[in-house]
Amino acid sequence: MKKIEHLGIAVKNLDASNALFEKLLGVAPYKQEAVASESVRTSFFQNGPNKIELVESTDPNGPIAKFLEKKGEGIHHVAFEVDDILAEMARLKQEGFTLLNEKPKKGADNKWVAFVHPKSANGVLVELCQEAPLQNN
Amino acid sequence: MKKIEHLGIAVKNLDASNALFEKLLGVAPYKQEAVASESVRTSFFQNGPNKIELVESTDPNGPIAKFLEKKGEGIHHVAFEVDDILAEMARLKQEGFTLLNEKPKKGADNKWVAFVHPKSANGVLVELCQEAPLQNN
Repeated sequence: MKKIEHLGIAVKNLDASNALFEKLLGVAPYKQEAVASESVRTSFFQNGPNKIELVESTDPNGPIAKFLEKKGEGIHHVAFEVDDILAEMARLKQEGFTLLNEKPKKGADNKWVAFVHPKSANGVLVELCQEAPLQNN
Repeated sequence: MKKIEHLGIAVKNLDASNALFEKLLGVAPYKQEAVASESVRTSFFQNGPNKIELVESTDPNGPIAKFLEKKGEGIHHVAFEVDDILAEMARLKQEGFTLLNEKPKKGADNKWVAFVHPKSANGVLVELCQEAPLQNN
Protein backbone atom coordinates (compact mmCIF):
# COMPACT_ATOMS: atom_id res chain seq x y z
CA MET A 1 0.00 0.00 0.00
CA LYS A 2 1.99 2.98 -1.29
CA LYS A 3 -0.39 5.88 -0.82
CA ILE A 4 -4.03 6.91 -1.00
CA GLU A 5 -4.47 6.76 -4.76
CA HIS A 6 -7.91 8.30 -4.53
CA LEU A 7 -10.86 8.89 -2.27
CA GLY A 8 -14.23 7.99 -3.80
CA ILE A 9 -17.24 10.16 -3.00
CA ALA A 10 -20.79 9.13 -3.90
CA VAL A 11 -22.85 11.98 -5.34
CA LYS A 12 -26.39 12.30 -6.65
CA ASN A 13 -25.64 14.70 -9.47
CA LEU A 14 -22.17 14.69 -11.00
CA ASP A 15 -22.48 18.06 -12.72
CA ALA A 16 -23.61 19.86 -9.55
CA SER A 17 -20.93 18.13 -7.48
CA ASN A 18 -18.21 18.89 -10.01
CA ALA A 19 -18.97 22.58 -9.51
CA LEU A 20 -18.98 22.19 -5.71
CA PHE A 21 -15.69 20.29 -5.53
CA GLU A 22 -14.06 22.69 -7.96
CA LYS A 23 -14.82 25.41 -5.40
CA LEU A 24 -13.69 23.24 -2.48
CA LEU A 25 -10.43 22.00 -3.99
CA GLY A 26 -9.63 25.06 -6.06
CA VAL A 27 -9.11 23.03 -9.26
CA ALA A 28 -11.39 21.76 -12.02
CA PRO A 29 -11.84 18.02 -12.63
CA TYR A 30 -9.20 16.84 -15.10
CA LYS A 31 -11.40 14.16 -16.61
CA GLN A 32 -14.78 12.47 -16.64
CA GLU A 33 -15.23 8.80 -17.36
CA ALA A 34 -18.13 6.35 -17.50
CA VAL A 35 -17.47 2.86 -16.12
CA ALA A 36 -20.18 0.67 -17.61
CA SER A 37 -19.24 -2.41 -15.56
CA GLU A 38 -19.94 -0.49 -12.33
CA SER A 39 -22.92 1.50 -13.66
CA VAL A 40 -21.32 4.82 -12.78
CA ARG A 41 -20.14 8.12 -14.20
CA THR A 42 -17.04 9.47 -12.51
CA SER A 43 -14.92 12.61 -12.45
CA PHE A 44 -11.40 13.05 -11.11
CA PHE A 45 -9.68 15.94 -9.35
CA GLN A 46 -5.93 15.99 -8.73
CA ASN A 47 -4.92 16.99 -5.20
CA GLY A 48 -1.13 16.85 -4.86
CA PRO A 49 -0.18 13.16 -4.88
CA ASN A 50 -3.82 12.09 -4.43
CA LYS A 51 -7.06 12.20 -6.38
CA ILE A 52 -10.67 12.77 -5.48
CA GLU A 53 -13.12 10.69 -7.51
CA LEU A 54 -16.78 11.70 -7.64
CA VAL A 55 -19.09 8.80 -8.47
CA GLU A 56 -22.66 9.13 -9.77
CA SER A 57 -24.89 6.12 -10.38
CA THR A 58 -26.27 5.44 -13.86
CA ASP A 59 -28.44 2.53 -12.67
CA PRO A 60 -31.09 2.82 -9.92
CA ASN A 61 -30.19 -0.74 -8.82
CA GLY A 62 -26.41 -0.26 -8.98
CA PRO A 63 -24.10 -0.24 -5.94
CA ILE A 64 -23.78 3.57 -5.79
CA ALA A 65 -27.56 4.05 -6.02
CA LYS A 66 -27.97 1.63 -3.12
CA PHE A 67 -25.28 3.38 -1.10
CA LEU A 68 -26.97 6.77 -1.65
CA GLU A 69 -30.33 5.34 -0.63
CA LYS A 70 -28.93 3.84 2.56
CA LYS A 71 -26.36 6.40 3.66
CA GLY A 72 -26.81 9.51 1.53
CA GLU A 73 -24.05 11.40 -0.24
CA GLY A 74 -20.58 11.17 1.23
CA ILE A 75 -17.28 9.30 1.25
CA HIS A 76 -17.81 5.91 -0.36
CA HIS A 77 -14.39 4.23 -0.53
CA VAL A 78 -10.65 4.72 -0.18
CA ALA A 79 -8.32 3.36 -2.84
CA PHE A 80 -4.71 2.48 -2.12
CA GLU A 81 -2.08 2.24 -4.82
CA VAL A 82 -0.23 -1.06 -4.91
CA ASP A 83 2.63 -2.30 -7.08
CA ASP A 84 1.41 -5.87 -7.42
CA ILE A 85 -2.33 -6.28 -6.91
CA LEU A 86 -2.24 -10.07 -7.18
CA ALA A 87 0.35 -10.35 -4.40
CA GLU A 88 -1.53 -7.83 -2.25
CA MET A 89 -4.84 -9.67 -2.72
CA ALA A 90 -3.18 -12.94 -1.69
CA ARG A 91 -1.60 -11.29 1.36
CA LEU A 92 -4.88 -9.74 2.53
CA LYS A 93 -6.77 -12.98 2.04
CA GLN A 94 -4.21 -14.77 4.16
CA GLU A 95 -4.56 -12.07 6.84
CA GLY A 96 -8.28 -12.86 7.05
CA PHE A 97 -9.77 -10.06 4.94
CA THR A 98 -12.72 -10.85 2.66
CA LEU A 99 -12.24 -9.78 -0.94
CA LEU A 100 -15.23 -8.75 -3.03
CA ASN A 101 -13.69 -10.02 -6.24
CA GLU A 102 -11.53 -13.07 -6.74
CA LYS A 103 -9.60 -11.55 -9.63
CA PRO A 104 -8.64 -7.95 -10.38
CA LYS A 105 -11.03 -6.18 -12.71
CA LYS A 106 -10.68 -3.15 -14.95
CA GLY A 107 -11.76 -0.03 -13.06
CA ALA A 108 -11.81 3.67 -13.88
CA ASP A 109 -8.65 5.52 -14.84
CA ASN A 110 -7.11 2.50 -16.61
CA LYS A 111 -6.44 0.68 -13.33
CA TRP A 112 -6.70 -2.92 -12.24
CA VAL A 113 -8.80 -2.89 -9.09
CA ALA A 114 -10.05 -5.18 -6.34
CA PHE A 115 -12.19 -4.45 -3.29
CA VAL A 116 -12.02 -5.56 0.33
CA HIS A 117 -15.41 -6.15 1.96
CA PRO A 118 -16.15 -3.35 4.47
CA LYS A 119 -17.38 -5.91 7.00
CA SER A 120 -13.83 -7.22 7.27
CA ALA A 121 -12.26 -3.75 7.38
CA ASN A 122 -14.00 -1.78 10.10
CA GLY A 123 -16.79 -0.57 7.85
CA VAL A 124 -14.35 0.85 5.28
CA LEU A 125 -14.72 -0.12 1.63
CA VAL A 126 -11.07 -0.49 0.60
CA GLU A 127 -10.03 -0.57 -3.04
CA LEU A 128 -6.64 -1.75 -4.22
CA CYS A 129 -5.51 -0.33 -7.51
CA GLN A 130 -2.60 -0.96 -9.79
CA GLU A 131 -1.66 0.77 -12.99
CA ALA A 132 -2.20 -1.64 -15.88
CA PRO A 133 -0.71 -4.00 -17.05
CA LEU A 134 -1.01 -6.85 -14.55
CA GLN A 135 2.14 -8.64 -13.53
CA ASN A 136 2.25 -12.44 -13.66
CA ASN A 137 -0.72 -12.61 -16.00
CA MET B 1 -5.38 22.15 -0.54
CA LYS B 2 -2.02 20.46 -1.06
CA LYS B 3 -2.82 16.79 -0.46
CA ILE B 4 -4.90 14.43 1.66
CA GLU B 5 -3.10 14.90 4.96
CA HIS B 6 -5.06 12.09 6.56
CA LEU B 7 -8.23 10.05 6.36
CA GLY B 8 -10.10 9.74 9.67
CA ILE B 9 -11.83 6.44 10.46
CA ALA B 10 -14.25 6.07 13.37
CA VAL B 11 -13.73 2.85 15.33
CA LYS B 12 -15.37 1.33 18.39
CA ASN B 13 -12.24 -0.17 19.89
CA LEU B 14 -8.89 1.44 19.14
CA ASP B 15 -6.76 -1.50 20.24
CA ALA B 16 -8.67 -4.01 18.10
CA SER B 17 -8.66 -1.65 15.12
CA ASN B 18 -4.95 -0.91 15.49
CA ALA B 19 -4.31 -4.62 15.01
CA LEU B 20 -6.67 -4.79 12.03
CA PHE B 21 -5.20 -1.77 10.23
CA GLU B 22 -1.67 -2.96 10.92
CA LYS B 23 -2.59 -6.08 8.92
CA LEU B 24 -4.35 -4.06 6.22
CA LEU B 25 -1.67 -1.42 5.72
CA GLY B 26 1.34 -3.58 6.51
CA VAL B 27 2.74 -1.11 9.06
CA ALA B 28 2.21 -0.49 12.77
CA PRO B 29 0.74 2.80 14.04
CA TYR B 30 3.57 5.27 14.66
CA LYS B 31 1.80 7.02 17.50
CA GLN B 32 -1.27 7.19 19.71
CA GLU B 33 -2.65 10.42 21.04
CA ALA B 34 -5.60 11.49 23.17
CA VAL B 35 -7.35 14.73 22.16
CA ALA B 36 -9.30 15.82 25.22
CA SER B 37 -11.05 18.72 23.45
CA GLU B 38 -12.63 16.27 20.97
CA SER B 39 -13.20 13.45 23.50
CA VAL B 40 -11.21 10.96 21.42
CA ARG B 41 -8.23 8.65 21.43
CA THR B 42 -6.46 8.44 18.09
CA SER B 43 -3.74 6.45 16.40
CA PHE B 44 -1.83 7.26 13.23
CA PHE B 45 -0.46 5.09 10.43
CA GLN B 46 1.86 6.47 7.76
CA ASN B 47 0.94 5.50 4.21
CA GLY B 48 3.38 7.10 1.76
CA PRO B 49 2.60 10.85 1.72
CA ASN B 50 -0.68 10.28 3.60
CA LYS B 51 -1.82 9.15 7.03
CA ILE B 52 -4.67 7.05 8.31
CA GLU B 53 -6.08 8.23 11.64
CA LEU B 54 -8.20 5.87 13.72
CA VAL B 55 -10.53 7.66 16.12
CA GLU B 56 -12.17 6.12 19.18
CA SER B 57 -14.62 8.02 21.38
CA THR B 58 -13.87 8.55 25.06
CA ASP B 59 -17.25 10.14 25.75
CA PRO B 60 -20.62 8.45 25.04
CA ASN B 61 -22.03 11.87 24.13
CA GLY B 62 -19.08 13.00 22.01
CA PRO B 63 -19.18 13.50 18.22
CA ILE B 64 -17.52 10.16 17.39
CA ALA B 65 -19.87 8.23 19.69
CA LYS B 66 -22.81 9.87 17.93
CA PHE B 67 -21.37 9.09 14.50
CA LEU B 68 -20.88 5.41 15.45
CA GLU B 69 -24.42 5.23 16.77
CA LYS B 70 -25.88 6.71 13.60
CA LYS B 71 -23.66 5.29 10.87
CA GLY B 72 -21.51 2.58 12.44
CA GLU B 73 -17.77 2.20 12.00
CA GLY B 74 -16.23 3.61 8.84
CA ILE B 75 -14.65 6.63 7.18
CA HIS B 76 -15.46 9.71 9.24
CA HIS B 77 -13.61 12.62 7.62
CA VAL B 78 -10.96 13.63 5.12
CA ALA B 79 -8.31 16.16 6.10
CA PHE B 80 -6.51 18.32 3.54
CA GLU B 81 -3.18 19.95 4.24
CA VAL B 82 -3.13 23.70 3.69
CA ASP B 83 -0.35 26.27 3.96
CA ASP B 84 -2.46 29.05 5.42
CA ILE B 85 -5.57 27.85 7.22
CA LEU B 86 -6.88 31.35 7.91
CA ALA B 87 -6.76 32.28 4.21
CA GLU B 88 -8.32 28.95 3.22
CA MET B 89 -11.13 29.34 5.76
CA ALA B 90 -11.87 32.83 4.41
CA ARG B 91 -11.84 31.55 0.82
CA LEU B 92 -14.22 28.67 1.56
CA LYS B 93 -16.59 30.93 3.49
CA GLN B 94 -16.72 33.29 0.54
CA GLU B 95 -17.42 30.33 -1.78
CA GLY B 96 -20.51 29.52 0.32
CA PHE B 97 -19.23 26.68 2.51
CA THR B 98 -20.33 26.51 6.14
CA LEU B 99 -17.46 26.23 8.62
CA LEU B 100 -17.98 24.39 11.89
CA ASN B 101 -15.54 26.59 13.76
CA GLU B 102 -14.94 30.29 13.32
CA LYS B 103 -11.29 30.07 14.32
CA PRO B 104 -8.71 27.30 13.88
CA LYS B 105 -8.36 25.05 16.91
CA LYS B 106 -5.60 22.75 18.08
CA GLY B 107 -6.21 19.23 16.79
CA ALA B 108 -4.31 15.98 16.97
CA ASP B 109 -0.75 15.70 15.67
CA ASN B 110 0.15 19.30 16.61
CA LYS B 111 -1.98 20.78 13.83
CA TRP B 112 -4.26 23.78 13.58
CA VAL B 113 -7.54 22.49 12.26
CA ALA B 114 -10.95 23.68 11.06
CA PHE B 115 -13.93 21.75 9.75
CA VAL B 116 -16.35 22.32 6.89
CA HIS B 117 -19.93 21.27 7.61
CA PRO B 118 -20.78 18.11 5.65
CA LYS B 119 -24.16 19.58 4.67
CA SER B 120 -22.33 22.16 2.58
CA ALA B 121 -19.86 19.64 1.12
CA ASN B 122 -21.90 16.78 -0.35
CA GLY B 123 -22.07 14.88 2.92
CA VAL B 124 -18.30 14.92 3.38
CA LEU B 125 -16.84 16.14 6.67
CA VAL B 126 -13.80 18.07 5.45
CA GLU B 127 -10.98 19.07 7.78
CA LEU B 128 -8.37 21.65 6.92
CA CYS B 129 -5.10 21.27 8.74
CA GLN B 130 -1.97 23.32 8.97
CA GLU B 131 1.25 22.57 10.78
CA ALA B 132 1.58 24.92 13.75
CA PRO B 133 2.36 27.82 14.14
CA LEU B 134 -0.45 29.94 12.68
CA GLN B 135 0.46 32.70 10.26
CA ASN B 136 -0.91 36.20 10.83
CA ASN B 137 -1.71 35.47 14.45
